[in-house]
Amino acid sequence: MPITTIAFDADDTLWHNESVFEMTQAHFAEILQRHAPDTDVDGALLERERANLHLFGYGVKGFTLSMIETAIEVTGGRATADDIQEILDAGKKMLSHPVDLLDGVREVVVDLSRSYRLLLITKGDLFDQENKVARSGLADLFDAVEIVSEKDVPTYRRILSDHGIEPSSLLMVGNSVKSDILPVLEIGARAAHIPYRITWEMERVDGPLPEGGVRLDRITEVPSHAAALD
Amino acid sequence: MPITTIAFDADDTLWHNESVFEMTQAHFAEILQRHAPDTDVDGALLERERANLHLFGYGVKGFTLSMIETAIEVTGGRATADDIQEILDAGKKMLSHPVDLLDGVREVVVDLSRSYRLLLITKGDLFDQENKVARSGLADLFDAVEIVSEKDVPTYRRILSDHGIEPSSLLMVGNSVKSDILPVLEIGARAAHIPYRITWEMERVDGPLPEGGVRLDRITEVPSHAAALD
Repeated sequence: MPITTIAFDADDTLWHNESVFEMTQAHFAEILQRHAPDTDVDGALLERERANLHLFGYGVKGFTLSMIETAIEVTGGRATADDIQEILDAGKKMLSHPVDLLDGVREVVVDLSRSYRLLLITKGDLFDQENKVARSGLADLFDAVEIVSEKDVPTYRRILSDHGIEPSSLLMVGNSVKSDILPVLEIGARAAHIPYRITWEMERVDGPLPEGGVRLDRITEVPSHAAALD
Repeated sequence: MPITTIAFDADDTLWHNESVFEMTQAHFAEILQRHAPDTDVDGALLERERANLHLFGYGVKGFTLSMIETAIEVTGGRATADDIQEILDAGKKMLSHPVDLLDGVREVVVDLSRSYRLLLITKGDLFDQENKVARSGLADLFDAVEIVSEKDVPTYRRILSDHGIEPSSLLMVGNSVKSDILPVLEIGARAAHIPYRITWEMERVDGPLPEGGVRLDRITEVPSHAAALD
């Protein structure tokens, strides 16, 4: 079946996101090193995020709460109120950070919107993701925006069913093998993986892509790839 | 037009919610009074929540971040790491708090689900609200669950359009005049206000209900009210 719908992930597929986390984490490590110079701050934070995931889900607010908790843990309670406020401010800065589109995104999305139904499927904080979609200037090019708490097989099935989309007519494009590629292939749709410069530890998956998945270098390759599928 | 769809708000309409916030805020005030005995903690927290709303939106994670920030402000930085951790733990406790249905809710929703299309429309953290819907045991009784960042006229219009619902065939039931009643009446649907014991300051609206709105004492009055509308 030819492709009639193209779905895009948002963070690190349409706009830079991990780079903002990376910058914030570097700042966070700097704060903690005042009290605990020899600590593996990134490792401690990741462990804390994993432990909090069942309560916080994905997104900047939970990330900020996990940074604060990590700061208290790692410094053995020596983190000061000023340190905590500095971490809080870093979290707020992430929430108001400009949405910086990846190269070629606008042109490709405009182009594809003429021939395909376009969906945007992203996970994270509802309010923050809505704001980013609005600030991206791309909202009007998508037929629907789906902000979800987890990108797994039941979620993709629900979205396809809500929009009356045949799995075999869908191409999903994203930077995360775990969230954007594997569950999509599992339901019988096609998927194109476009790696971002950084992959968050929790999204990392090793090994080659299963059948139906391809790896592209950049988003400008999507139109010809989609057109070639049938 | 007779009512064919009934939409329910969730927090403080189907299950207790403000009571959990109230309990947490009492605990929070107790923590701060160790350092700042004469402070209006509730007032300071409300002001902080208002200032952060454009970044955090609604929900427990933003509330917890605002508590932490208020603690630092109100104590002039004397809040300790232990205090902050205690606040963080209080926030986490809210996120895993049992979902305690209001009296009669289950029976009424089961009853109505036989004759009406039922929607659940709630705002807050996506992940937290999904978890509460799941834990409520009511999820299967609703035709759709809509978790939104703001309950305003555009949001209600979008939901009705997505589900192909005529405004005049909809009755919305909720505890917040601001979020559940006024925007719903504005789009030409009907609304029933069932006040909860506590109303959050930010949801408070004075004055009588506009035409099309009624005030009921309890959810068990909804079936006969809905049946009488045409």
